[in-house]
Amino acid sequence: MAGAIQPDLDLAGRLLQRLSHATRRGRGIVRDSYGDGEQAAHDLLRSAGEACGLEITIDAIGNLSMTLPGRDREAPHVIIGSHLDSVPQGGNFDGAAGVVAGMCVLSALKRARYVPEFDLTVMGIRAEESAWFDIAYLGSGGAFGLLDPACLSITRSDNGRSLETTLKERGFDPEAIRERRRLLDPVSIRAYLELHIEQGATLVARGLPAAVVSGIRGCKRFRNARCVGEYAHSGAVDRPYRHDAVAATVALLHHMEGVWLKQQGEGADLVLTAGEFYTDPAMHGPSKIAGETHFVLDLRSLSDATLETVGDTARMAAELIGKQYRVQFDLGATSDSPAAVMDRRLRTRLMGLLEQPFEMASGAGHDAAVFSKVGIPSAMIFVRNENGSHNPDEAMSMDDFAVGVRALMGLLTDFPL
Amino acid sequence: MAGAIQPDLDLAGRLLQRLSHATRRGRGIVRDSYGDGEQAAHDLLRSAGEACGLEITIDAIGNLSMTLPGRDREAPHVIIGSHLDSVPQGGNFDGAAGVVAGMCVLSALKRARYVPEFDLTVMGIRAEESAWFDIAYLGSGGAFGLLDPACLSITRSDNGRSLETTLKERGFDPEAIRERRRLLDPVSIRAYLELHIEQGATLVARGLPAAVVSGIRGCKRFRNARCVGEYAHSGAVDRPYRHDAVAATVALLHHMEGVWLKQQGEGADLVLTAGEFYTDPAMHGPSKIAGETHFVLDLRSLSDATLETVGDTARMAAELIGKQYRVQFDLGATSDSPAAVMDRRLRTRLMGLLEQPFEMASGAGHDAAVFSKVGIPSAMIFVRNENGSHNPDEAMSMDDFAVGVRALMGLLTDFPL
Repeated sequence: MAGAIQPDLDLAGRLLQRLSHATRRGRGIVRDSYGDGEQAAHDLLRSAGEACGLEITIDAIGNLSMTLPGRDREAPHVIIGSHLDSVPQGGNFDGAAGVVAGMCVLSALKRARYVPEFDLTVMGIRAEESAWFDIAYLGSGGAFGLLDPACLSITRSDNGRSLETTLKERGFDPEAIRERRRLLDPVSIRAYLELHIEQGATLVARGLPAAVVSGIRGCKRFRNARCVGEYAHSGAVDRPYRHDAVAATVALLHHMEGVWLKQQGEGADLVLTAGEFYTDPAMHGPSKIAGETHFVLDLRSLSDATLETVGDTARMAAELIGKQYRVQFDLGATSDSPAAVMDRRLRTRLMGLLEQPFEMASGAGHDAAVFSKVGIPSAMIFVRNENGSHNPDEAMSMDDFAVGVRALMGLLTDFPL
Repeated sequence: MAGAIQPDLDLAGRLLQRLSHATRRGRGIVRDSYGDGEQAAHDLLRSAGEACGLEITIDAIGNLSMTLPGRDREAPHVIIGSHLDSVPQGGNFDGAAGVVAGMCVLSALKRARYVPEFDLTVMGIRAEESAWFDIAYLGSGGAFGLLDPACLSITRSDNGRSLETTLKERGFDPEAIRERRRLLDPVSIRAYLELHIEQGATLVARGLPAAVVSGIRGCKRFRNARCVGEYAHSGAVDRPYRHDAVAATVALLHHMEGVWLKQQGEGADLVLTAGEFYTDPAMHGPSKIAGETHFVLDLRSLSDATLETVGDTARMAAELIGKQYRVQFDLGATSDSPAAVMDRRLRTRLMGLLEQPFEMASGAGHDAAVFSKVGIPSAMIFVRNENGSHNPDEAMSMDDFAVGVRALMGLLTDFPL
């Protein structure tokens, strides 16, 4: 028991400042996956870990682990981790805050000469963002041998170099991915904990500093949906003779908003977004009825069953509304990623450690989803953040960060065995 | 009275064939305004007029008039006209059918030695399409001195030559436009009659060969409407915290469809189209809530009052829905062209001359709107046409054409004085 040990918030502040200084390019942060920016962050965290006296290891694909040894070195350990890369022109906190959180907890425990029951490891995970290699979770997925080796030929969006070439240049081993080698054994991991800034505005709106994450929403995405009607003169064709692709798509999306409200009314977790919607600039015109639309329909839920139901509803509605509007919808295939429910015992414990307990879903994906997928009890803490994420204006206050870190400290020093 | 005189449909068929032969470029028709294609059509019609023994005049800006003299040469005359230009890769009938209709009526009257009470003139009007000079009604507007002289510097979309240069090259006189010279005196014109293919699919759908046009719809167009919200993560932001520009625009357009249905239910003439709708390709993304949309809202009605009412409703709805969805609509200025109601007496007379009388609005603009605007009683006959207009697949049958031309003949030979 070490209830009185306070996390080393000064260290956290210094590390976040240094990260900002080392990886800011113009207005925003650039920690490019397997590039100089991400490497600078890894170097910085590694130095801090060495200065604290933690045991450092780096795996075949560059994930950084820094361990405070426990009494029983053979017992399954706990990982506190997050990623150290960012999107192009991102913010300072998305990812890094979670690694820094782990560091400032372990640093304080080490300084207090606290010896945990089992190893505690801070992990700086590689390449979580899909902005650079168009695949998410390279670091955590690769650590568990989950990656399709075909990913080695994905090229980086900015410089066109393949993942394989990039890994080699950085001194890592693409063979680990090709052989689907397990760099981490799930059985050896007791739990995975991740602190992350909230990427939405729920905590800001509710005036709460932090929240426990109930789960990571799965996604069912109609990435290439379209509606085909017929181009015609906007003035010359009356309503019964139109094949208006915009009107039909508007009707479908309006219907789906109704489905969303109904699902919410019944207590289901769901968000529904059409973030891309466009008529064809080569064909549309101000005095034309549109003959075609392209759109994306992105569904997210903590419940895979809800995703299936709402996805099916969208297909049925497209069929009916298509007939009604004399157009043809082609919603296309969906890309699906299943929902990841966070560990109930860890969530309950974390809720008990918050002064204003609040639980919410994560709409964005996180490495915690990968750890959860391989059966490791996983939990996340969200910290309030102004201005959204993935932009230079991310804004997390150190006071809010402290609330999240103290909950982590409380959990680690009184871990439910 | 000359009820027995039949229009010269053989001549009409020959003329339409020759027009197609002379002005087909690849699959479609190219009668470029004040270009070689339009000139070829004017030359062809002029030769036909000369062969029939009509009096030929060409005004300062190239409009062709071919007159069958009446008993009273000083009495106001009747013009049967339409335009002889086409859009790029257009069809053979849009415009030309109306001039050919006049020709085959006058040719038959002349051959039957019929002398009308007053002059009857077939007019081949220049440059009705805005495809070449980005201004509609150059020929008819110019004939009444209605054009803004600034139009002389508009350049042709394909070759970049100004209207002024183009007129000079063709041997016409740009000064007529600069001085706003009246080439036609409205007081000298008893009526204007125009036969035109229907540009929509109403007659095809109803199985009718022809219709009387009740009026030419006015247009109120929100050409540059937009909605500004906030970009955010599609999974991470719950409904109450979204500023979703697509959702708001869908709500507005859905609302306006309801307004349309309500107006129709109350008997108002209205069509409503959003023919352009797009999120910003540089900013949108499949996993983003859209922070901006651009769209066009195009309203058409025979009633200017309806256009005003529905336009006001759109602005009010945008205000309310903007608040509801936490976004800002900016519908921008409208471009307005007033509705032109066709002459009631002429309409009634034409209806009586159709075996299956049917009246409908014209959604597209026609030279008849210009004649109506200067106070000349005007009327139009629509002829059934498959596949829409402004494309190579325009398809008018000669049987349907004959129905329209016979109604014209009936009107001209028993004109309501």
